[in-house]
Parts: sequence; C-alpha cells; structure tokens
Amino acid sequence: MANAQLQSVLDHIDKDFDNSLERLFSLLRIKSISADPAYAGDCRAAAEHLARDIASIGVATEVRPTAGHPAVVGKTSAGGRPHVIFYGHYDVQPVDPLDLWHRPPFEPVVADHADGRKIIVARGAEDDKGQVMTFVEACRAWKKVTGSLPIDVTFLIEGEEEVGSKNFVPFVEANKDEFKADYVLVCDTGMWDPETPAITTALRGLLYEEVKITAASRDLHSGVFGGTAMNPIRVLTRVLGGLFDDDNRITIPGFYDGVKDTPPEILEQWKKLEFTPDSFLKPVGLSIPAGEKGRLMVEQASTRPTCDVNGIWGGYIGEGSKTVIPSHASAKVSFRLVQGQDPQKIRLAFRDYVTARIPGDCKVEFGDHSAAPAVALDWNMKPLAAARKALTEEWGKETVLMGSGASIPIVADFKRTLGLDSLLVGFGLDDDNIHSPNEKYDLRSFQKGIRSWARILAALAEVK
Amino acid sequence: MANAQLQSVLDHIDKDFDNSLERLFSLLRIKSISADPAYAGDCRAAAEHLARDIASIGVATEVRPTAGHPAVVGKTSAGGRPHVIFYGHYDVQPVDPLDLWHRPPFEPVVADHADGRKIIVARGAEDDKGQVMTFVEACRAWKKVTGSLPIDVTFLIEGEEEVGSKNFVPFVEANKDEFKADYVLVCDTGMWDPETPAITTALRGLLYEEVKITAASRDLHSGVFGGTAMNPIRVLTRVLGGLFDDDNRITIPGFYDGVKDTPPEILEQWKKLEFTPDSFLKPVGLSIPAGEKGRLMVEQASTRPTCDVNGIWGGYIGEGSKTVIPSHASAKVSFRLVQGQDPQKIRLAFRDYVTARIPGDCKVEFGDHSAAPAVALDWNMKPLAAARKALTEEWGKETVLMGSGASIPIVADFKRTLGLDSLLVGFGLDDDNIHSPNEKYDLRSFQKGIRSWARILAALAEVK
Repeated sequence: MANAQLQSVLDHIDKDFDNSLERLFSLLRIKSISADPAYAGDCRAAAEHLARDIASIGVATEVRPTAGHPAVVGKTSAGGRPHVIFYGHYDVQPVDPLDLWHRPPFEPVVADHADGRKIIVARGAEDDKGQVMTFVEACRAWKKVTGSLPIDVTFLIEGEEEVGSKNFVPFVEANKDEFKADYVLVCDTGMWDPETPAITTALRGLLYEEVKITAASRDLHSGVFGGTAMNPIRVLTRVLGGLFDDDNRITIPGFYDGVKDTPPEILEQWKKLEFTPDSFLKPVGLSIPAGEKGRLMVEQASTRPTCDVNGIWGGYIGEGSKTVIPSHASAKVSFRLVQGQDPQKIRLAFRDYVTARIPGDCKVEFGDHSAAPAVALDWNMKPLAAARKALTEEWGKETVLMGSGASIPIVADFKRTLGLDSLLVGFGLDDDNIHSPNEKYDLRSFQKGIRSWARILAALAEVK
Repeated sequence: MANAQLQSVLDHIDKDFDNSLERLFSLLRIKSISADPAYAGDCRAAAEHLARDIASIGVATEVRPTAGHPAVVGKTSAGGRPHVIFYGHYDVQPVDPLDLWHRPPFEPVVADHADGRKIIVARGAEDDKGQVMTFVEACRAWKKVTGSLPIDVTFLIEGEEEVGSKNFVPFVEANKDEFKADYVLVCDTGMWDPETPAITTALRGLLYEEVKITAASRDLHSGVFGGTAMNPIRVLTRVLGGLFDDDNRITIPGFYDGVKDTPPEILEQWKKLEFTPDSFLKPVGLSIPAGEKGRLMVEQASTRPTCDVNGIWGGYIGEGSKTVIPSHASAKVSFRLVQGQDPQKIRLAFRDYVTARIPGDCKVEFGDHSAAPAVALDWNMKPLAAARKALTEEWGKETVLMGSGASIPIVADFKRTLGLDSLLVGFGLDDDNIHSPNEKYDLRSFQKGIRSWARILAALAEVK
C-alpha cells in the first residue's frame, strides 16, 4: 500500500521544499549549545520549538525533563505494524573560534560552495538539526499526502549528545516501558561520498578524559623561580608528547590489548577503495597519514583506535609576553576505541600512564567526560536490506555498508537499556565542518535526505 | 654636608609616611598593563600622573612620546656634583587569572600577611611602582627638608619594561645627549631576605619566543579524521616535551656552549648559604629542585640557564568536551641566559630544534618577544661601596652582593647606548608574587626603602 503512494509523497516533498528549509532555519537560529551552561535556556527553547514542530505534523509530542537538558518525545500508535524509535539530537557543539566563521553561526543561509554546490551554513546545519529534520519532513509529507505514516514512530530527540548523553541515558532507562519498539533509526552519520549513500554498520567508541597538573601553589616569576621550580607545562608536554612512538602507535601499556587485525579479505576489498591522502587529506591541507605505520589509511580512520589531545591550556595565553611559571596546566584527551577495547580499562591504563610520569611534588587530577565502547551492528536482517534498497533507488548508486571512525555512544546504550538494534542512515559529507567553524549541510543532502527517509518508511512498512 | 642633614630627612620620612603611602596608592590605581593594547590609555594616564607627582617635588618633568607607551623624564641640574639617572618603570604585568586575586588588583589596600607582616596588595605594589616610589619619596623628603637633592638626578621612567622595552631603548638612543650622567640607579630588584639588604651585581638574560604549529587548514572532527590527520597539539607537546633530558638539562644542541662553571671558591661560599628547598620551594608548595642534577639550587636559580614554557594553548579549552582536532596550537617559550650565551645564537638553535621536529605537512611560525644577554656588573668602584654602607646602616645587617636569576635587559642597553654602568638596589622579597595574583610589597620594604634611598643619596654625594 505504502509503495503505491510513495511517488505522490516524493512529489510533495519537492514542491514543499522551500517550506522545509524555512522550518529547518527556525531550528538552526536557536543557540542550543549543550556544553556551555550559559545556553541552557536556548537548549530548552530548541526542545520546545522541535516539540511544536513535530506536533504540527499531527504527532502527540511533549518536552520531557531529564536531570540535564530536556528530551523531546512524540509517538504515533496505530498498532499492528512495525514500530520504530527515531533518534537524533537538537544540541550543537560550541562555536569557538568564532572569528573563523565567515558568518554568524546562528544565522543560517543558503550559500554557494566553491565548487558550485548549494550549501546550508550554520552551526548544527548537519550535526544534527539538519539530519533530524530530514526525517521529520519525510514524516510531514507522508501525513500531508496520505493522512498517516506507513509505520508507527516514536520520536526520541535528546539535548545532550554533544556532551555525552549523561542525563539522557538514565532518562531512557527510567522510562523504558514507554520505548518498546522493533528497532531504532538513527540519523547522525554520513554518506560514503557526495554521490553514494551509506548505512553505517560499525562505530568506534569514545573515551574522553581531562587532565590537570598542578605544581606550585601559585603562579611564579620565571626569573626568580626559573631553574628550581617545576613547570606544570613541562610535565604536561612531556607526558602527552610521549603518547606516540615513532611508528605512531600509542604507548600506553595495554592500549592495544584485545584489538583484532582487520580480516585479510576485508583488507583486499579496502585496497580497491579510492580512499587516499589525495582524496581525504588534501582537501584539509594535509598529505601524510598520521596513524600507525603499516596500516591502510582506511584502517587508521575506522578500525584502529586513536588518541587525540582535543585541547590544551596553561600559563599566559594573551597577547605579548609574560614571564610566568604557572601553577597548573590542563588538557582534554580523547580516544576512539574499537571492538575488543573496554573503555574503563583504557581509562585506568591512561590514568596510570600519566600518574607514573608526575614528579613527586606535583599532583594530577582527572575528570571524565564520557566513555562508550565501540559498536558492531549485526544487520543480516530485513530492515537493513529494505533500507539499503530504498537508498539505492533514491541515489541511483549502490548503497555502501561502512564502518565509521566516529562514535555514537547512544547506539550501545539503546542495546543495553532497550534491547534494540539501531539502523544508522545519514547524509553528512566529510567536508561538512561539523564541530568546526562554518559547518554546512549540502542542500542536496537535505532534500534527497528527506526523499530517502520517505522511501525508507515505505520500505520498512513492507518488512515482516 | 648632606650627612649632617640626613637625620632630619629620615625623621621627615617617618612623619610623612601615611602621605607617601597615599601617593603610591594613587599610582597603583591606574591600570597600566603594557602587554594589552586595550590599556594604552591607562599607560598614558600613569605616565602623566607620575610626571605630575615628580614635578610636585620641584623637579622639571615631562611625559615624552616614544613609538609605544610614553616615558617620563625629569631632571635637576645644579651641576658641580655627581649626576645619576634613576631608572624604573610604571607599567605592570597583566592580572590574569583574575579569579585567583583575593581583591581587585587595582584597588590597593594595606593588609595583614599570614605571619603578621603588614603588606601593600595590588598589581604593581612591588614591580615596579612601589619600588619607583621609594626613590621618588626619598627625593621628596630631601627637597622638603633641605630645599634640594644631595646629587643631581635625571628621572627616566619607562612604560614598556614588561614587554621588552622595544620602543624605550630606541628613545634613549635617539636622545642620548640628554642622558649624560655618571651612572644609573635601578630600583627593580630584591633583598637577600626580609632582614638583609642586597645589591644585585649579576643578572640573567632573557630570550622569549612564540611558536605556532599549523596542521590542517581547518579544525577537524576527531571521529572522522582521528587516526589519519596530524594533530598540531601532538606535534607541539612532542617538541616541547623533549626540551629536557632525564638530568633536567636542556636538549637544544649548543645550548650550553660558552656557559662557564661556577668557580670552586664561589661554590664553597654558596654551600654555606641557607638557600634550600625548605627555605625557597616549600613556601610555594614544592620540594624538589627542578634544575640540572648535580648543581646547587643557588646555581640553578642564578648562574645556570633555564627554559620555561610560559603559556600553551590549542583546541577546545572551554567547559565540557569537544571532539576537535584543532588546526593549530601555540606556545610561549622563554630562556634565562647566563654569561657566555648569545641570545641570537640561542634563538636560532631553538628554532632549528623545533623546525627539525615538524612533520612534512605541518608548518611552524615563530614570533619573538625579546632577547637580552646576561649582565655581570663591574662594581669595584666607589658608588657601590658607598651604597652598600648606607644600606647596611639602615637595615643593621651586612649588605649582600648577589647574582639574580631574573633579567633586567635595560642594564645592558644603558651600557651600550649611554656607556653607563648601573647600580641595582631594590627591596622586593621572594614572596612578593610579582607577575602573579595577589602581588604585594611589604609595608616595611616601602618605608625602609624610602629611608634607604635617602641614605644612599647622601652617601653618593660624598663619592668623588
């Protein structure tokens, strides 16, 4: 039945696209930065806006409190047909360094990309407001054209994905009876390339730590104390500077325990992919893969664990010079984890590694931001095949099943708390600048993303 | 003659001390932070205030433009007697981190130190406004009581000492005919301890560099690019983390070339000094000397060269977490230099060291903040002996001739531009928190500092 009406739905999507874009812009204008407490009111405003928007389709939707930023929950309940949870997030990353944005990050526009593509530019244009709205707009079109959705949907949109979902996961767990479904649809991933759709079937995990090293009890003058007082930046750079060996392997004892080599048959397939320094690194001004020597770059990017210092600070960082030996220095350090690595074990190994390198009269403090294991999805199942076929029909190219270097910890949490697998479909591109200045989402990603979900909804209705 | 009137001058200083304090407070209230262009107006205001204050003694004084913050120049010209230049600076260090100050840094107060000492608390209380005012107030007392100063004085107070005197030195050089004198008095150093006066006869030099490492052309998402894209913080921490070997020696090739060992007879004297981790490091919460192994701590602090990272920054440094691989990372790195080291050679050696460690697709940029060689003063001369005797009389303890770990680059500049030696007398203490939050100057340093200069002026009048 659903397939018979699909063409009318797709036609309506194209006809109504300017309005879809305006609805996305209204959401993008809200400064829902979850990391910064100063924007808590904006996060709530984004939740309320999104709840009204989903309700306007004709889906009962409410803003639900959590111990942090609220969640948005909406539900259809025709019954007797597949029931999915749709997951996304309305919170966005901080916008600094603000001076590198070409336009204010919360004043969305459609602009021309250098190569002629039309792009939507704003913080959250892709991650994840643009992606969420591809699904919402697909549902809106189905309701408008046919009066109902092809399957039952529970919308479950959170506001703390960018800060580790610390309060959202307990919320889901506490209300799990409400969230009975067949599986979860997640829209927070990317395409293989601008022409080729993809379903993500493996995700790296994420461990995110903060380290603060304290030496003297106060800032010191380097003329008076230089040469006798330990400088915490010296300690911090020595510790962090030793995290990699000359082969770019991470030196923390036990870090690679349990990590499996990529099977030879997969390696053979990957060697044929056009994933090269020229295709992947050159667009961002680099040329030399920085991962483990002797590994394919696609392994470095997806199936090997990594370490990055995401932030470092200490001492005088203003203009000019100040001859200070600071009292303390800090860094934010994260690890992308793969199958076989236990986040808690890696956390302890990292802390042991750092602690062992702290001089006797300095101290170290740790803070944790998040810890999620890697996920490998078992998708030898009908919804995956149905979604893959629908995507291939929309894009005219075979859908790729791919591993992703990024982490979506909620996927493991849904499995643990609700017992549900997730199907990860998204329309992001490598050059979307997510988490960076000038984030964008291709206008084509948004429009064909809506059309893709319209097709997938129809296809999933047929899955028994 | 001068000595006959000295007791009346000293009595007047004690009687007028509350007014001296209020005049110092007026100067301390001006936010003359030279490093930050936002405070340029305050620097000018401080110069104008100081010029008016010196003129109020009866010394013709004006604010003189330089290519940067202005200088204050005042002059007496009786003739036929010794003529000295008095040098100091009215600019102060930045005040961050502001949240560690117990009171606003530009609202001076007299407070009780934990051990009962009365202290003046404010940015600049010691460095260098308090020290400058010891001399100005001594001159004021001489003029008030006797109608004139015992010797001729040219006041020469600059506003860019904390940022390397880049514009002041050319100003002195361009006007050197105005600055003919017998020698220079500099008040920007410290006592041996709270009871023991000192004259500083050797100073370390200072080389101050800034390093910026750029990897990708924009910030990247660590999920997408982690493992393949080089992280500039990884490069920076590896480079800086390798600056010291396990014996705490600096690893830059050639760094110690030309550095001489301390003569054995000096070492024997120093071994008797009570300069220990307990006396020097414990008050700031440390216990292990961080300098070269096998050297006395007094060597580490005064006659050995050092390296400190004074600031480091890169990536996300706000609250919470952000999974970014930043485009660039930076650090401010300074070196205290000793006799035998050429700042320009060290600069090149440092830059070579860094450049050799930059991956092929990253780039490094350098900025320089200052470069000054070490200075050893030749003071087998009468003014030194006269000043030493005057200080000993005021404090009741033998005056120590000491080397200082800090740098006062202007001393070398006065020698080069004006051909003049400098006599360095000051009343700072190790716990004054200069360049740190809660800077202070002992009330006793200020009062007895004024009295000390009154005595020195009298003593210098007798030197033929």
